[in-house]
Formats: sequence, structure tokens, C-alpha cells
Amino acid sequence: MSKQPVIILVDPQMGENIGMVARAMLNCGLTELRVVRPRDGWPSQPARDNAAGADIVIDGVKLYDTTQDAVADLQRVYATTGRPRGMVTRVVTPRHAAGELREEIGRDVNCGILFGGERSGLVNDDVALADAVISVPLNPDFKSLNLAQAVLLVAYEWLISVDDTPPTQLEANENPPASMAELDNFMSRLGAGLDEGRFFKSPEMRPVTLRNIRNLFQRAELTEQDVRTLHGIIKALRNAGPQG
Amino acid sequence: MSKQPVIILVDPQMGENIGMVARAMLNCGLTELRVVRPRDGWPSQPARDNAAGADIVIDGVKLYDTTQDAVADLQRVYATTGRPRGMVTRVVTPRHAAGELREEIGRDVNCGILFGGERSGLVNDDVALADAVISVPLNPDFKSLNLAQAVLLVAYEWLISVDDTPPTQLEANENPPASMAELDNFMSRLGAGLDEGRFFKSPEMRPVTLRNIRNLFQRAELTEQDVRTLHGIIKALRNAGPQG
Repeated sequence: MSKQPVIILVDPQMGENIGMVARAMLNCGLTELRVVRPRDGWPSQPARDNAAGADIVIDGVKLYDTTQDAVADLQRVYATTGRPRGMVTRVVTPRHAAGELREEIGRDVNCGILFGGERSGLVNDDVALADAVISVPLNPDFKSLNLAQAVLLVAYEWLISVDDTPPTQLEANENPPASMAELDNFMSRLGAGLDEGRFFKSPEMRPVTLRNIRNLFQRAELTEQDVRTLHGIIKALRNAGPQG
Repeated sequence: MSKQPVIILVDPQMGENIGMVARAMLNCGLTELRVVRPRDGWPSQPARDNAAGADIVIDGVKLYDTTQDAVADLQRVYATTGRPRGMVTRVVTPRHAAGELREEIGRDVNCGILFGGERSGLVNDDVALADAVISVPLNPDFKSLNLAQAVLLVAYEWLISVDDTPPTQLEANENPPASMAELDNFMSRLGAGLDEGRFFKSPEMRPVTLRNIRNLFQRAELTEQDVRTLHGIIKALRNAGPQG
């Protein structure tokens, strides 16, 4: 068994939805899908069509007659539910579950996540097979997710529980950032133009105002190319002459 | 405007998808939806059918002819893209964006998030209208999300970004961020000056170059005061006349 949680759909109805689940899974790097009693049978062309190319998931689907069979080889099982079941069960968020799954799978524990069918979700007997319940925090007045979207949110949390994308970055650009000297040079040329155009209300305000302007450009994290463009703008505006 | 980000769909094709977007939004407590040029027209029965009861979102949809019009009153705009655009743009994860949105909206800044159509996402001119790009970390070999799922992930991160962030550490700034309309106005005045000063090497390069320039200023997260200063700079440089 590979190092990822298995997704188990219990009593799904439409092949379309199984396909969309496969797509959402692969979006998040998951490939192992088990299906218990698909209403419209298997294989399913609508499932393949809606998988949008996630054939690796569709081709690998395993079928089961009972939920019990589908989880028999698993050592840790979560059940996703949208409503309380009156059972004494640990209820976790998808994010918390993702952390637990990473830990368990890191210890070679076989893990799976149960999702119920479109109409009413998992029956209590299925929930009772699970070690814990995953409940997605949503608008309490409008909680009903479709099946693929429920899978997507849980799989997404799994994916980003190890994602090392920096939360914020500048898009890669071949253009190197401008040096301070280049910015200085631009600012002094701009300052000269502003002097000639009588921009500053008083000599005392000049340094403060220039500092604010420099700060404005500095916030833009200029590249060398940007600074060349700005030089060109100064030249062009001066050549344009006073506005008619 | 209420205290939540606006979702803006640009060139969506199928009403079904708009409906699923509305459902995903309301799942996460969002209700303000703007739509630019829906291919199949509006109102849309397929949209309503697929909203699964999110009528409050469907009934409140506002229509626009251009992306620019749709963001004109917004002060902070994110663009969601799945592929790099070769622009110097800040790229953030949905989670990071959610934190920023909480902070901005807490300061009464009007925020919106752009999503492109099903086929190819946002065009570069739309991305250039945004202050930053949201990129969802996904399986790099299978990144293509459907529209409603992209909206769901971003809206979900918004929903669960708990609002107990400590009071902002940003230096107090009485100056509100410039609106997109104010930036548009500045850019058209700058463009006119650049035309008169023969800045553009060829008519074909004009739109691309102007977009890069706009992007440069947008990265600086301009305030209303900044935009006033920049107008003053244009005027002063034109008055200064050609450099001796």
C-alpha cells in the first residue's frame, strides 16, 4: 500500500460524481479510490468523462460489496459527516485529520477516509467503523457540499499539510531586482525633473516628499527593467511638454 | 459593501458552473457575486438549479461588461491563476490571501477575488488589474481545477481563517488604498503623456508596455494620497520640459 490515505465512497449514485471525485483526488496527489456498491454500476463512462484525465485513479478503482470489506485491511479509518450522529466519537477538522494522517502514514499505518453517497451521506453503521469523524467547518446555515467538493477539501488539507510553497513570493522573473544605486540614480533624476517643474511647494518639504515618493517605488520591489522603464517615462513626459 | 470579499467570475461559460460557484460560496458564508460577460446569458435557470438553494447569491448577482468595471470600486484585488504569467507579481497561497483579506476587510478595505472562465482562466490584462495572484498549491502534474472547486478552496480558506488575528502591526495609515477606478484614471493620464512624448516604440507594444507599467504601480499598493502625488509628478515633469 502506498503512502497516502485511501478514499472510500460508500453507495455513490452518479458516475459523474465518482469522476469528479477522481479528479479532485488527483488534483491533490491521491490515487487510491475504493467504491462500495456504486448505484449505476462499474465501469462507468460518465465517471471517466468527468475525471478530466484522472485516468490513473479511475483505472485503479477497487469495488466492494460492503463498507466492512472495503476497510478490512486499513488500520485507521475516518468517516466524513455533515451532521452529528449522537455517537461518542472524536470529531476532527480536515486540517487536524491531515496532520494525524501524515503522522500515521509516516509510521506505515494504512489509513482511509469514508465518504457517504450524494443523498444522505454515511449510515451510522458505517460511521461506527471509523476511529474518528471528520467534519468540515462550513456555514452552519448552508452546509451541504457535493460529494466531490467534500473529497476535495479533505484531500486539499492532506496535500498542503506538507506543502512547502512559501505563503507569499514574487513570481519568478528573469529580471533581477534593481540595486539601491539604480534606485538612487532614478530618484535623483526624478528629483531634478520635479525641481524644474516646480513640484515642491517649499524647499523644506522637498526631502520629506521625495522620501515618500521613494518609499512608494520601493514598495513595488522594482526590477532593473522597471527602473529602465521609469527613466523612459521621465524622458517621455518631459518631451511631451505641458498638458494642453 | 459588506465585510467579505466579492467573488468575480470573468467570462464564465456554463450557467451550471455559476450555480455551483454560488453554492460553494454560500457553503463558506460568501454572498456577493459579480459576473463579467456570462457566455450563456443571465439570468440562468441552470445556474439557479445548480446553486442547490443558494438563492441569496444567485439573486444578488451583479453583471458587468468589463473586468475593469467589475473591480472599479474595489481597493484590493486578487487574481487566481493556475499558471505563471511572466509578470512581476506577488503570488500567494489561498491561506495567506485569507489572512490578508481578514486584515484588509477589518480595516474596511473593499476586496475582491477574480476567477477566469472554464476554458483558459484569466487573460493577462485581467491579471494585471490585480494586486496579487492567488495560486493554489496542487499536484503539479494535474493542476486543473474546475471553476467551482477553485472558488471553494479559496472561500474555504477565507472561512476558516479565524478572525482572532492580533490587531494589525502595520503602521497606522489614515490614507485609504486607492480604488481601481483611481488607478485607471492615473494610468490613462500617464498613457496620454507617454503618447505625446513618443514613449512607445510601436503601437503594437503600447498595451503590453502599459500593462507592465500598471503592474509596477499596482505592486506598490498605492493609497489615494499616492495617486494624487503621482498625478502631481506627471504634471511637474511635463512642465519641466525636455532635459537640457
